[in-house]
Amino acid sequence: MRILGIDPGLAIVGYSILDVEGNRMKAANYGVIETASTMDFPDRLKFLYEELNLIIKKYKPDEVAIEELFFNKNVKTAIKVGHARGVEILSASMNGLEIYEYTPLQIKNAITGYGRAEKNQIQEMVKILLNLSEIPKPDDAADALAVAITHFHSLKHKEEFRLR
Amino acid sequence: MRILGIDPGLAIVGYSILDVEGNRMKAANYGVIETASTMDFPDRLKFLYEELNLIIKKYKPDEVAIEELFFNKNVKTAIKVGHARGVEILSASMNGLEIYEYTPLQIKNAITGYGRAEKNQIQEMVKILLNLSEIPKPDDAADALAVAITHFHSLKHKEEFRLR
Repeated sequence: MRILGIDPGLAIVGYSILDVEGNRMKAANYGVIETASTMDFPDRLKFLYEELNLIIKKYKPDEVAIEELFFNKNVKTAIKVGHARGVEILSASMNGLEIYEYTPLQIKNAITGYGRAEKNQIQEMVKILLNLSEIPKPDDAADALAVAITHFHSLKHKEEFRLR
Repeated sequence: MRILGIDPGLAIVGYSILDVEGNRMKAANYGVIETASTMDFPDRLKFLYEELNLIIKKYKPDEVAIEELFFNKNVKTAIKVGHARGVEILSASMNGLEIYEYTPLQIKNAITGYGRAEKNQIQEMVKILLNLSEIPKPDDAADALAVAITHFHSLKHKEEFRLR
């Protein structure tokens, strides 16, 4: 089975393609989609939507795992990123894929067994778990791998995490 | 020129089709798109996107006016509605339309000349301005007419309100 992991965002969206079979997993690809802040907001949403559609058409994932938004103090920013995440979810939904979501805490726990793990600890674990020669860069791509691995670990009780 | 007005939302989206020429305007249609809370969230986004696409294909508006989200205290709700508004903006953007946004305050000022106007005052003014026999229902459709009228009033300096 192939999982598409998404670290949602407006300026930068991380994505990962994780192939899993039994208790083994392998990163088929990972990267980021970026939109410049000089682009008009509607064009940024359109670009994210179209790029994500292309990734889905190309890699044909079976399921999607996306990180929940962390609500920081800047509500305006959170809502803007919410617009982008809506479009990212739409892309998966228009392509007929089931979507599962995980909080940052759930991801940290799944990857390191420790909810207060630092970013670099997560990234180091992602590298080890996937047998990569280097820590995946940028951070957003590593985060997208982390959410896909989290979904892999949750497959037996995934219904609990389905986005409803 | 034909304006599509949108009162954004997740459970209910108001839309209006306003035809304007010189200093005259006429409501060609208005209504709402609703999604039940029993639907899965990704399906609600997909439904809103598809319905809005159908409205755009049917009425072929030239420009879109959409209300800005009011940031209330419930950040979680605001972010959910942000997801929906992102999809609504995407629909306009995918159809090649320019999008203009107005705050609730700007709409109140444009319609009644008074930023603290009550909802029923706005609705009464919408009815009068458009020569309707009754107050448009539900509220979300009336709000969608109000934002379209606001855009009509702002056409000469619309660039200021273009969503960037």
